[in-house]
Amino acid sequence: MLTASFYSFPFRFSGLNFQDLMVRLGAIDSPPKTPTILGFECAGEIEAVGEEVEGFKVGDRVVALPEFRAWSELVAVPTKYCYHIPEEMTYQDAAAIVMNYLVAYILIFDLVSLREGKSLLLHSVGGGVGQAIVQLVRTVPNVTIFGVCSKSKHEALAATGLIDHLIDRTDYVNEVRKITTEGVDIVMDCLCGEECNRGYGLLKPMGKYILYGSSNVVTGETKSFFSVARSWWQVDKVSPIKLFEENKSLAGFNLRHLLYQQDGSEYIRSTVDKIFGLWKDGKIKPVVDSAWALEDVAEAMQKMHDRKNIGKLVLDPSLEPKPKPATPAKSKSKKQASEDKGGKKDKDDDKKAGENGEEKKEEDGAAGEEAKTNGAAEGEAAAPAQVNGDDGGEKKEQAATNGEATESEKKESS
Amino acid sequence: MLTASFYSFPFRFSGLNFQDLMVRLGAIDSPPKTPTILGFECAGEIEAVGEEVEGFKVGDRVVALPEFRAWSELVAVPTKYCYHIPEEMTYQDAAAIVMNYLVAYILIFDLVSLREGKSLLLHSVGGGVGQAIVQLVRTVPNVTIFGVCSKSKHEALAATGLIDHLIDRTDYVNEVRKITTEGVDIVMDCLCGEECNRGYGLLKPMGKYILYGSSNVVTGETKSFFSVARSWWQVDKVSPIKLFEENKSLAGFNLRHLLYQQDGSEYIRSTVDKIFGLWKDGKIKPVVDSAWALEDVAEAMQKMHDRKNIGKLVLDPSLEPKPKPATPAKSKSKKQASEDKGGKKDKDDDKKAGENGEEKKEEDGAAGEEAKTNGAAEGEAAAPAQVNGDDGGEKKEQAATNGEATESEKKESS
Repeated sequence: MLTASFYSFPFRFSGLNFQDLMVRLGAIDSPPKTPTILGFECAGEIEAVGEEVEGFKVGDRVVALPEFRAWSELVAVPTKYCYHIPEEMTYQDAAAIVMNYLVAYILIFDLVSLREGKSLLLHSVGGGVGQAIVQLVRTVPNVTIFGVCSKSKHEALAATGLIDHLIDRTDYVNEVRKITTEGVDIVMDCLCGEECNRGYGLLKPMGKYILYGSSNVVTGETKSFFSVARSWWQVDKVSPIKLFEENKSLAGFNLRHLLYQQDGSEYIRSTVDKIFGLWKDGKIKPVVDSAWALEDVAEAMQKMHDRKNIGKLVLDPSLEPKPKPATPAKSKSKKQASEDKGGKKDKDDDKKAGENGEEKKEEDGAAGEEAKTNGAAEGEAAAPAQVNGDDGGEKKEQAATNGEATESEKKESS
Repeated sequence: MLTASFYSFPFRFSGLNFQDLMVRLGAIDSPPKTPTILGFECAGEIEAVGEEVEGFKVGDRVVALPEFRAWSELVAVPTKYCYHIPEEMTYQDAAAIVMNYLVAYILIFDLVSLREGKSLLLHSVGGGVGQAIVQLVRTVPNVTIFGVCSKSKHEALAATGLIDHLIDRTDYVNEVRKITTEGVDIVMDCLCGEECNRGYGLLKPMGKYILYGSSNVVTGETKSFFSVARSWWQVDKVSPIKLFEENKSLAGFNLRHLLYQQDGSEYIRSTVDKIFGLWKDGKIKPVVDSAWALEDVAEAMQKMHDRKNIGKLVLDPSLEPKPKPATPAKSKSKKQASEDKGGKKDKDDDKKAGENGEEKKEEDGAAGEEAKTNGAAEGEAAAPAQVNGDDGGEKKEQAATNGEATESEKKESS
């Protein structure tokens, strides 16, 4: 039974966020008790409403930002975290837009108030929020974007034509200095850890350093709960007087805290309205990396963990799970094959052998920049040796998923 | 002889700033070698230009922000720190506007990007920058101003009708909490020291704490060079991660550093243009507390030190020095009279006895809010016992200066 101010719906689409990875790793403050269901965003049609619900009724198309449990069969969400989807917007777009563009919009227009002529350094430019930031920045004239990401994404991102300077992440400070000895006006940092210390030094006078995540804690070597603390210890404390003397700003943004702990739901709702407005005006268009069946969520999460995506990863429960090879692939080493038998083998054996591999990529239906971006992302994903190199954990297949996503989208939109 | 890119002029008007007090106290980084001439801002007519000067010629009316030496007989200033005065603006207004409104404008529109519906806590609301901030804030609809200052200024400031809540400085945190348990969106702090720690706690989520001065180092008990360090030690360092978790921002602004050390002159020039534009549109009008003869600068500085001013203190070298009492005033205690003999007595004896005392206040010529404000400020200044209470240093007379200022202004404007 629903409590009074809740409504519920079966989700049609959901988005993956770094937050989900952090919950999985236990690298989040106030984590839920296990067993729990993950997920912070979903879109669907309302199936039932509580007695006191106002403004929402059965049949409404909504997107919601629940605190966990977005990947449930039925999602019960307080109305303050729900937003009506504009008429012409698909569920997939709604699920792909809301959280990423919320973060991007607030950073750019509320924390920074981006103006003409500024320059901006952006970490993880290929990620979902990174791509949202790039699009929103482009609504302001004459802003120079320094996009930091791994070399492997440069070609695909260059093709979008939206990023002025693509910088490799390994030595980005020197790379930026080579292009501009002056430094930049704004740094958008979703990595935290040591990057704070390095990036702060790149700021020009009147520069603003914006910290909006701590995704470094779930990548590279830092995978344990304790590594979170270790990563954060690396961040130098700053005296406000230093900021005063250097003419610099430091700002932090944490959507989860704002929404669930700090009662920011009205502010968030008004920002969602602005984002939907920009979408209606054709100013933004979500970049979807790929869509995944719910059964493949582990693989999707690993792709995000390995930073192989360009744009947003979404879950689409209407998708069939990807066929898995019945036998270890020929290219695998003995060691890998024997590891596979350890954990996921049984489950994998139940599924069909891979048959819709890389060939399908060419059928990607998305038009324009997204199509290019997706293609490249899949190209990366199709190199399992690189992707899985250091990972002894979950097994990952590299079938193309975009063809399926597009089909599903067509079905849904029709 | 002038170096190529300089020009010089005898200043007509100059403004006093907290910065001047800090220089006098040695409480400033990279202080000039003594002997030196003080002053960071002045307005006047160009008398000579260097060979390579472009854009300025002899006879131009300019206001300038030199690094020290603004109170010289002839001021030589690099053109990058000079701005043409709009045709209809008096020299006094130019000297009173430029620095204060520069700081105020940058804080409100560049660091904060003030929006409708926000609330703002403002320390030293009666000071020159405080009054400039209040006027600029009022160009944005529906902003709630919490103005902090000493109780003695409340009546005069309430009369302006521009400040929503006047708060006594002694216990402002509790006073603000009584009015709004939520806290405020913005804190503007020109005090530094412990206020940083206290004020940060008053911020709402998404709140911005702006540090634009350290005037606490020149007031109260803190008068030595070492007290600066002591005051600054009280400021807690902040982890960027704390800002991220709490959704808060910290920003610093130091005009002197920006202008003279960080090559911000182009940015400042464009901001001066905007301020002159607002002045032409009638949106801002400098609040001048009082004008002083150059010979009375010590007294003027003491008034600022004691925070007895409402609005800007300006120097007008065309003014006659105020007559000084030939003998210690009757009201003085034996102790004070004997102290007077110690330092400044000889100099004071050279001047005439006070003859235009408090009676003249009623003649203040300035119209509108300024007139009210000035009247009240002078009222305060006319209570020497209070003003000089703890001060064993310079002697202060409390003659009314506004009558003279107004006469001079008339003369100049005509």
